Amino acid sequence: MNDSLSPTDDPRLAGTPTDRISDAARTRFRIDPGWHFGFERLVEWSDVDAFRHANHTSFLLWFEAARNRYLQAAGLPRLSADTPGPVMMSLEARYLLPLAYYDPVFVTARVRSMRRTSFVMEYAAWGEAGCHASCTAVLVLMINATGEKVAIPDGVRTAIRALDAPSEEGA
Amino acid sequence: MNDSLSPTDDPRLAGTPTDRISDAARTRFRIDPGWHFGFERLVEWSDVDAFRHANHTSFLLWFEAARNRYLQAAGLPRLSADTPGPVMMSLEARYLLPLAYYDPVFVTARVRSMRRTSFVMEYAAWGEAGCHASCTAVLVLMINATGEKVAIPDGVRTAIRALDAPSEEGA
Amino acid sequence: MNDSLSPTDDPRLAGTPTDRISDAARTRFRIDPGWHFGFERLVEWSDVDAFRHANHTSFLLWFEAARNRYLQAAGLPRLSADTPGPVMMSLEARYLLPLAYYDPVFVTARVRSMRRTSFVMEYAAWGEAGCHASCTAVLVLMINATGEKVAIPDGVRTAIRALDAPSEEGA
Amino acid sequence: MNDSLSPTDDPRLAGTPTDRISDAARTRFRIDPGWHFGFERLVEWSDVDAFRHANHTSFLLWFEAARNRYLQAAGLPRLSADTPGPVMMSLEARYLLPLAYYDPVFVTARVRSMRRTSFVMEYAAWGEAGCHASCTAVLVLMINATGEKVAIPDGVRTAIRALDAPSEEGA
Repeated sequence: MNDSLSPTDDPRLAGTPTDRISDAARTRFRIDPGWHFGFERLVEWSDVDAFRHANHTSFLLWFEAARNRYLQAAGLPRLSADTPGPVMMSLEARYLLPLAYYDPVFVTARVRSMRRTSFVMEYAAWGEAGCHASCTAVLVLMINATGEKVAIPDGVRTAIRALDAPSEEGA
Repeated sequence: MNDSLSPTDDPRLAGTPTDRISDAARTRFRIDPGWHFGFERLVEWSDVDAFRHANHTSFLLWFEAARNRYLQAAGLPRLSADTPGPVMMSLEARYLLPLAYYDPVFVTARVRSMRRTSFVMEYAAWGEAGCHASCTAVLVLMINATGEKVAIPDGVRTAIRALDAPSEEGA
Repeated sequence: MNDSLSPTDDPRLAGTPTDRISDAARTRFRIDPGWHFGFERLVEWSDVDAFRHANHTSFLLWFEAARNRYLQAAGLPRLSADTPGPVMMSLEARYLLPLAYYDPVFVTARVRSMRRTSFVMEYAAWGEAGCHASCTAVLVLMINATGEKVAIPDGVRTAIRALDAPSEEGA
Repeated sequence: MNDSLSPTDDPRLAGTPTDRISDAARTRFRIDPGWHFGFERLVEWSDVDAFRHANHTSFLLWFEAARNRYLQAAGLPRLSADTPGPVMMSLEARYLLPLAYYDPVFVTARVRSMRRTSFVMEYAAWGEAGCHASCTAVLVLMINATGEKVAIPDGVRTAIRALDAPSEEGA
């Protein structure tokens, strides 16, 4: 991990928790060393369903926020219809332990592999008992207004390489 | 498929579309013959994100509604903390085609296999171009207030067998 | 009420409950005679929070769906960024009785008054005990892509007049 | 404002932005001096609808989170079915300016008046152009499992008085 991903230089993130994982967070949430990017949040009332646990889709919305922040920190323009944005092709999620209202949760994201226009990201949600849920998603970069697939920009690719050392393949 | 699953006998469903798949719906949405349970809805404004397509989590909430209706039609009590309810262990979803605001979508559900306390369900979302998304989920039946796993009740098991002929295994 | 609002002529609504209020629904939900447009739905699992009642924002999303259907039935184009769409200026809501998971709820909408570019709509959610919540909203018609206010189209105005006989004022 | 409301003593809030309004935030978001409690967040992708602005209900969910944090900081137990929790009776909201994806927004809350079991809260959402939306809500404190109204606990009342000096009335 080096400094090419510097979310805290973005004034939009001023006042929000840094997206680097501090040693304190890593210890408190038992986060594996293979993760470098994430942020803490609380389980909100709107995340919880009538079983009094965070609904399975709430985890996926946290992962969506983590994906967007990660890509923006890597240099992708803020999501819009006319710039390259990630579109989900498939996902797999495993739910290991529940989370209750107001539990702190640390959400992590990383890129596992990149191709020309698509990439595989992994996500996890960590509570004080360790990993509560994990997810793998295949995404393709697309101009949403036109549906056109676009190559991962070089600068973004470089920033991701520096943070997560993903495998890379042609096509 | 026989009559042991009779959602339309439930006065709670009076006024809602039947959850049997009509021939007209099957033709219009090109629904494969292996599906027997589902309902039509419209893509709501709240389902759609700023890319102007139904968000990937909206599909999963439709599938959640389909799961709950299916299980209730099979005789499971209406979801509550003190009665057996499905808890998601894992899911896999594939997103094939987007859906826009106000598009009609037909949501189907079926049980693929059952064990003693857990079962595998499949879901699909059909638009006028055919299958737009599919999903497989592993669920366990649990009393949410206590976290206790419970066996699938015999009557529910019988109703599911009659509708979907799932594979069954011990434990 | 006459036939100028004919939602069931819209093939998009084929298979969904009609948005005219049937006598049966009016009796069952004790709907006041001053309402002419609405539809029945069930309280979904995703509508309910950890107090096991529909969250206060769920009612507002039902009202949003009712607003969009009403306006589309009155001839407004399906919502998009480039066509006139309603933007909320203010709302008032009163919550009278709770609704639980899977309760049937009938959602009604009407226009109370129109000006040149803005209008006041009222909404209500009816359960089997009568009115559970009501809402009044002030909306302005706007091209969202540009922020430009636009006059209510004549055809839409005529259809609304025919259904709800709202008061009308200049500018 | 004094120290009886000390959210940052709550380890649950460790790592989250403090809920006191810093001078820097007050200047940046042009927050009126009459507000003492709030937090910054970003407009998430899930907050935004297909008009590419935060949906009107997203503001209300931010206000819900602010209400819950405020009351917990004032000493109310974390929300549960068996402890006193706020139930919304009515709300009024005014939408002044839109917010786009990833815009920073500062959400404030205060108590305007208290009676025995009910109270009036005000909320606002501040962007870099000042106030984007405001809301007033009437809430009643209730044990949700039983529906029983309960008096605002003395300690909570004292903490609220110290922060916001609300008017108070009998009954």
